[in-house]
Formats: sequence, structure tokens, C-alpha cells
Amino acid sequence: MKIDLNADIGESYGNYKCGLDEEVVPYISSANVACGFHAADPVVMDKTVSLAKEHGICVGAHPGFPDLNGFGRRKMAVTPKELKAMVQYQIGALNAFCKAYDMKLSHVKPHGAMYNMAAKDKALALAIAEGIYEVDPSLILLGLSGSLLVEAAKETGLGGANEVFADRAYNDDGTLVDRSQKGAVITDEETAIQRVIEMVKNGTVKSITGKTIEVKADSVCLHGDGEKAVEFARKINAALTAEGIEIVSMQNLLREVC
Amino acid sequence: MKIDLNADIGESYGNYKCGLDEEVVPYISSANVACGFHAADPVVMDKTVSLAKEHGICVGAHPGFPDLNGFGRRKMAVTPKELKAMVQYQIGALNAFCKAYDMKLSHVKPHGAMYNMAAKDKALALAIAEGIYEVDPSLILLGLSGSLLVEAAKETGLGGANEVFADRAYNDDGTLVDRSQKGAVITDEETAIQRVIEMVKNGTVKSITGKTIEVKADSVCLHGDGEKAVEFARKINAALTAEGIEIVSMQNLLREVC
Amino acid sequence: MKIDLNADIGESYGNYKCGLDEEVVPYISSANVACGFHAADPVVMDKTVSLAKEHGICVGAHPGFPDLNGFGRRKMAVTPKELKAMVQYQIGALNAFCKAYDMKLSHVKPHGAMYNMAAKDKALALAIAEGIYEVDPSLILLGLSGSLLVEAAKETGLGGANEVFADRAYNDDGTLVDRSQKGAVITDEETAIQRVIEMVKNGTVKSITGKTIEVKADSVCLHGDGEKAVEFARKINAALTAEGIEIVSMQNLLREVC
Amino acid sequence: MKIDLNADIGESYGNYKCGLDEEVVPYISSANVACGFHAADPVVMDKTVSLAKEHGICVGAHPGFPDLNGFGRRKMAVTPKELKAMVQYQIGALNAFCKAYDMKLSHVKPHGAMYNMAAKDKALALAIAEGIYEVDPSLILLGLSGSLLVEAAKETGLGGANEVFADRAYNDDGTLVDRSQKGAVITDEETAIQRVIEMVKNGTVKSITGKTIEVKADSVCLHGDGEKAVEFARKINAALTAEGIEIVSMQNLLREVC
Repeated sequence: MKIDLNADIGESYGNYKCGLDEEVVPYISSANVACGFHAADPVVMDKTVSLAKEHGICVGAHPGFPDLNGFGRRKMAVTPKELKAMVQYQIGALNAFCKAYDMKLSHVKPHGAMYNMAAKDKALALAIAEGIYEVDPSLILLGLSGSLLVEAAKETGLGGANEVFADRAYNDDGTLVDRSQKGAVITDEETAIQRVIEMVKNGTVKSITGKTIEVKADSVCLHGDGEKAVEFARKINAALTAEGIEIVSMQNLLREVC
Repeated sequence: MKIDLNADIGESYGNYKCGLDEEVVPYISSANVACGFHAADPVVMDKTVSLAKEHGICVGAHPGFPDLNGFGRRKMAVTPKELKAMVQYQIGALNAFCKAYDMKLSHVKPHGAMYNMAAKDKALALAIAEGIYEVDPSLILLGLSGSLLVEAAKETGLGGANEVFADRAYNDDGTLVDRSQKGAVITDEETAIQRVIEMVKNGTVKSITGKTIEVKADSVCLHGDGEKAVEFARKINAALTAEGIEIVSMQNLLREVC
Repeated sequence: MKIDLNADIGESYGNYKCGLDEEVVPYISSANVACGFHAADPVVMDKTVSLAKEHGICVGAHPGFPDLNGFGRRKMAVTPKELKAMVQYQIGALNAFCKAYDMKLSHVKPHGAMYNMAAKDKALALAIAEGIYEVDPSLILLGLSGSLLVEAAKETGLGGANEVFADRAYNDDGTLVDRSQKGAVITDEETAIQRVIEMVKNGTVKSITGKTIEVKADSVCLHGDGEKAVEFARKINAALTAEGIEIVSMQNLLREVC
Repeated sequence: MKIDLNADIGESYGNYKCGLDEEVVPYISSANVACGFHAADPVVMDKTVSLAKEHGICVGAHPGFPDLNGFGRRKMAVTPKELKAMVQYQIGALNAFCKAYDMKLSHVKPHGAMYNMAAKDKALALAIAEGIYEVDPSLILLGLSGSLLVEAAKETGLGGANEVFADRAYNDDGTLVDRSQKGAVITDEETAIQRVIEMVKNGTVKSITGKTIEVKADSVCLHGDGEKAVEFARKINAALTAEGIEIVSMQNLLREVC
């Protein structure tokens, strides 16, 4: 049994520092690196790719909307054509640093509002998938487990990886419970860890209504935005390893699984 | 005898249209495509690379300072480290569109203030050259003829192409006469064309003091920012061809020359 | 009988020129001046306010979303708090140039997606109205005739001006026919002019279904984005004057009407 | 005897937090508030002006170059015309929030590279001073003590306030010792405090060569970028008070002194 652990890193910008990148990278197998639209700048990207290389983890592009002020979290009414071009631009920009460090870009995970919008809008999901495919068909597209983004990846011919969340509750249909609802966030660390183990081992999780539902888990999203988040990353990494679950990058996992 | 004709294209931005790209591309062999810092956006870059492909001309990256408002023409006190990263970022971004159109990126020509600063500052010139080399050592660096930028290209191991200007006067030392000085700009089209032919054939040009000086010409800079500029591009293309001078891309020219 | 004629001007940005400002200002009474978010920069704003002063027309702020690339036309999911602050910021920025030219800022007209979203979303409409009121309660808020924006203006204590469009068809409920629908845009100039005269004189217009509906007209939106648009501005100005309808600024009009 | 204590606050941006504003404001009399070019956004500016009001301190505009990525610290070759317009824009933007909170904008302190360039370039210094004067002649211009910026303020008709630094060594001519030189920064807190007291009481300070030189001190620059900086602000505030030196805003100080 295998699973990928991913985290968004490289979100600093100029004078502004953000995230405990150095602390979290030892516990993950894939890094989603911001590409200068919602966060990061060229110097930060250079440093982040270098950090990933040092730790032997895979680098993926983390493209976002051109909205640094809103950190890419505000929905923007972009057309599929605009979206495709902005994803290609950001993949290419990050890839330059990968080439400079003699690394191969591994995957693409859309950020924030782009991720959420594409999970539910097929035209946007396809724009992202096709944009990636045109630039490099060997890239994996990481999206919300069971979402249109993963579906679009597969239709386009890309590898699609299903992302799950340790700290989020699921509805009966496999979608995430909206953060505004009670019980949407799982705060007990032990529960969160057990849920991930169940998702990896059985491909199931208990929904917010108590029903056992199927959830495909290729990669677990971790965070590096605080001491507590880093500590959780350490714990879940250790717990998975103790269960005999191998922590491997998406590329490694999907090349065998798919 | 061979020469490359280049022009800066793809400088529109969102709602703002700029340049007669469609009109000028038939007369050039290499296009310098803006990369989103001083001009252009992802949609414009996509369209511009597509246009270049359609006309069978080479695409080079035209990175600039992150100053859309100043169109990359205002000097900025960047460090070599910052400059290197911002050049790599822009090369990569443009390269994504080249990959999407199954084209190979050909060269890099820094824009505006970046071009002028690097022509005279070795640390900046090396930052650019090394940045390019790390991303792709087969790229050609196009800089002011005889400048530190071309020197840095060669020291770094890159192909360096010497750019000359049809409409600018030269000092005795081969540098351009500052635009603020009288006689800096050559307004007579016929004179401009004859000067280019002399530069290509003999590797010489008459300086502003009347002295015959040596100027190496690998590529001539043309413009596409008005009907008159396009008409001049047409004329110089025709005149060179009539003289039996072949108009070829930098890659074609330097692969044999260097 | 009186009416205000307004146009969006000052939309150039750095090297990018946009709009025939000099040509259209002779025919309008109020100028909506871009404030640097969706268009314009400080130098352009300075020049635009100076142009308005020269022609003796009123200057209003034309705040937009922080999306130069999308020209403020892409919807963005901003919170009322963010929207209020971004409107206040832009009003203040433009007001500095008014003070420098010893002019009084007259009104505020939200731009593009901000205008359209606020017309239908009361929370956003109130955020704009309250933001304006806090900065200067004597400013007039110009919004789509009969929309929530004008309603919010009045609830907040601001003067609210109703904007009508010469070249757009209306639904039976007084909203604009969506541009995607057939007949949404009125292309015949004479028809367009007669409709405006009817709106000003009778407060009515024929809807797309042929019904006569009520439409309150305080200001007519004109354009300056082409020779044809400028020519239409000239014609409608002349036609209104010939009908004995006085063309006055919103401030002049509402001070008496309200 | 009186002195103003100032600090740069409101430098956060969107998701990026920066500075211990709440901690440092109790110890200062004037706040220099970032205006959205080198730092801050409209929401941050709103919050910062509100914080200043709560603590009864004066608000000044802290305009910078349009270079968020470089935090306004990179020199940019702007023209006086561009500089004047960008200063006016930023003053106006901040003033909107002052009006919303019923406060009067007190002063203007250029930031970073703009401050340093204008200290030594009379054309730039005058562009700033004239820009301020046109918008509001009652604003005070705060610049490096004895610099061209303060000189330009006075020539233009503005109040000019001389800023001194507690932790920086001075050359014999009253300029700051460059940070690259040994001894440029005074690290001993007690020494720093005594130097400020001497500057305020006697208008003198010991230069780096040991000579007693004249330095006019209207305002002392403090920092809020770390626990240590805040602690120093507390100490110097207490030490000055203990010496019977009254801590007052620039407006209060200059209205009586000038």
C-alpha cells in the first residue's frame, strides 16, 4: 500500500515570509510550488525548487489566479481560454527552475479558487487538463478526489491523482462538507490520522451522516502554515509508516497504479 | 552572406492593443516575444507564438523588468540574483507556449532597461547569461553588438548574437549615440538601408564622427509599432534580398558561423 | 428638461493608449475617470483630470476591480468589506488630482463587473454606497437606472443618479437585455437617439417585447472608443439640444431634482 | 523640549502579515502608513488608520515606488513627473480612509528607495514637495535631517520635518554612514537612547569620526518589525519622557517651532 503526502510550499513573496517550508518538507513526498500569480516570485521559486531537490521530493506546479492580494482564493470569472493560458504560463515558469536544478516537473495542482471552481465546472477542468497536456503529457493533474478535475485529467490523457483531506468531513456523495457547516473540520488529530489510514487501506471513510462511503486517495494534503500543522505532518507520516503504508510521490504511485 | 532580422512582438496586454504584429512578421526571421513582465499576458503570448509558427519564424523570449506601467524602460536596481531568477521565470513561461505549439525556443533578448543595463554591467550580463544557460544551453543570447551581454554569453558557453540598429548612429567605440544627442537617430530610410548592407557585407559602419568602425552584425532590429515601421521592414528585407544577402534566423546563422 | 451625458475616459495605461478622450469630452457633461485598478495610472489620471477641467466638465471616480489584465470586466468574489475599501481607495486617489487642479469630485460610477454585480447584489451595492458616503456624502452615485445600486445610494443618504443606455434594449422589468440575446444592442443611430429623447421627455421606453415601460433617466452613457462612438456622441448631444433638452452635469441636475 | 516619534506601520498585504503594529503604536506619536504601492492594500489601510485613531496618534502617508516585490527598496528611474503623480495618488488614497475615520492627514514620508533618492536629487525632492503642496499645503514633509527633501519642502512652502535615526551612525557632513561600512549601525540600546537625547536637547551628535556635529531632530524613526524593536520603542519613549522631553506629533511640534 502506498500514498503520496503533498503540501503547498513556496508561498512567500519578496519581503513577506509565509509558511514553514523547511520544517514541513521532511514529511512530504510531493511539493506544490506557487508560481507567482497568487503567491511567490522568481527568487522564492528558485529557492523552493532548490529546497525540494535537497530533500529528494517531487516538485509540482501550483498555479493560481492572478490575484496576489486575495491569495488566489477569490473566484474570478475567467474564460476557459484565459484559464488554459494562465496555467500553461505558470507551469512553464516553474519548469525553468526545475530545469536549472536538473529536476523533472512532476505534477500540477491548481490553487484555491481555481481548484474549487474546476472541481465543479467541466469546461474549466478541461481547460486546465488540456493546457497541461499540451505542455507536457507526462505531468500528473492532482485534484479533489472524485472531482471533475480528475475526470478531465483522465479524459485528456493525463494521469489524474485524487487528493483527500485529513482534517475535512465528507458528504455522502464524496464532496467536502462546506467549511461554514458544523463539523466540517476535524480537529482531533488522532481521528484525522485514523481516517487517512482507512481511506488508504480500504478506500472508504465515514461521511458526516455516519455512512461509510468510498473515497479514492492517491495523495493527502498537509499544511505547513504553523507549528501545529508541521507537527501533524510529522505524526501522520509516522503513523502511515507504522501501518506499513509506503509514502511515495504521485509519479511513483500512479505509474504503478494506473 | 546571411543576416537575421528581428522584431519585438506580442506586446499587447488584455484590452490594450499594441504593435502591428501581423504586418511585420512576414519580413522578419526572429521574433522577440514579450513574457508578461513589461508587456503581454498569457493569452497574448499564446496568440503570438501561434502567429510566429504560422509564419515559420523563430521565437525568442523577450524578458523585461516587472514594470508594466513603465513598459520595462525604467532602470530598476535589481541584484544579479533577482535578475537571473526573473529571466529564468520569463523564459520558462514563454517556453510553455512553444511546447504547446511544438516549437523550440530559439533565443533570448532582454528588453528595454534590462538590455541597456546589462550591456554595460558585467555582473548583470553574467546573471542573464548564466540564467539562460542553466535553463537551456542551446539558447542564443541576443545583445547589443560588441556589448558585455554578448561577451557574457560567450564566457558562459551560450551562443551570443550581435544586434545592430538600422536607424541609430554609432560612436567611434561602437556604442550607440545617446538618443539625447543630435544625429543619434537616422531618419533617411535609404541611408539606413545602405548602412545595414555595409554592416552585413563588410562588418563596418561610418561612425557619427565620420570614421569607419568595425561592427559585427548577426541580427538587425526592426520595429512593428506603426505603418511606417512596417513599411521600412518590408523595404530593408527586399533590399537585403536584392543584394544576395540571405535572411535567416539566428539559430541558422550561428550554428554555421560560430 | 435636463439630462447628463457621461463617458468613461482616462483608460490609457503607461505605454498603452486607449480611447479618444480629447474627441469625446466636448460632447459630455460628466467624465468617469479610471482610478488605476482596472485601467489608468497616476500620470494618466493627472492628464485626464486636467483635460476635464479644460472642458469645464465634471469629474467622477470610476473605480473598478484590481484586474488590469481583465480590464475590470471579470467578476471577482470580493467581500463587501474588501469592496468598500477598494472603492474608498480609488475615490481618494482620484480626488488628489482633483484637489491639485482645484476641482471638486462630483460622482462615482463603478466600472464593469463591479457595476454589474452591485446592480443585483444589495450587500455589494450598500458596501459601495457606504464607502462613498463615509469619504464624502456630497458625492453622487451613478448606477444602472432602477438598480439596487441607485437604491443603495438613496438608503445611505447619497444622491443616486439613474444611468440609461442609448444603444441597449430593455426587458419589461426595466433591466437591460443580455448582450447574448438577439436585439440586445440597438445599432440604428436614429432609433437610439429617439429612444433617449423619449426616456428624457416621458420617462418611458419601448421594451424588447414592444411594451412601453418606465425608465428613469438622469444620465446617458456614451462611449469614446472609436471614431463612430465619438460621432454618435456629437449627434446625440446635438439632437438633445435641438429638442430643448439642457445637457448638464449630474450635480447640477440632482441638486434641483432631488 | 519636544520630539516626535514615528514608525512605518500598515505594511501587511492580503494574506501576508508584517510588523507588530498594535505593539508599537502606544509608543509613537506619528504613524507613516503604507499606501498600496510598496506595501499595504485598501483593507490593510482601513484597519491601520482605525488603529492610529484608536491610539490618538497622527497619520501620515508613506508613499513608495510601485514595487511590492522589492518592498519599494529598489531604486527605479522615474521621472519627476511620474514621481509627483505617484505621490499624489498615494496621498489621496490614504486620505480617503482618514476622511472615513474623520481624521486629518498629518504628513508625508517617502518610503525606501524613494526617500533615499529624493534626499540627494533636488528634482525628485521638488517633485515630491510640489505634488504634496498641490494636494494639501498643510501637510508636513518628513525627510532625512538636513537633506534635499527637507530643503525642497521649505522652498515649496510646506512644513519640513527633519528625521533622525537612533540606531545609525552619522558622517561628519550629517549624512548617514552607509550600511555597508563598519560601525554604521549602533547596536547598543543605551548608546542609541543617549544619542537621541543629545540630538533633541543640543541639536548635536557625535559623528563616526568622533566629531560633534549639528543634527536637527524633529522626529525619531522607530521600528515595529520585531519584539526587540518594539521593546526599544518602549524604552526610548520612557527615557525621553524621563528627561522631560515631550513626545508630540510633527504637526504639534512644527506649528509651534516653525
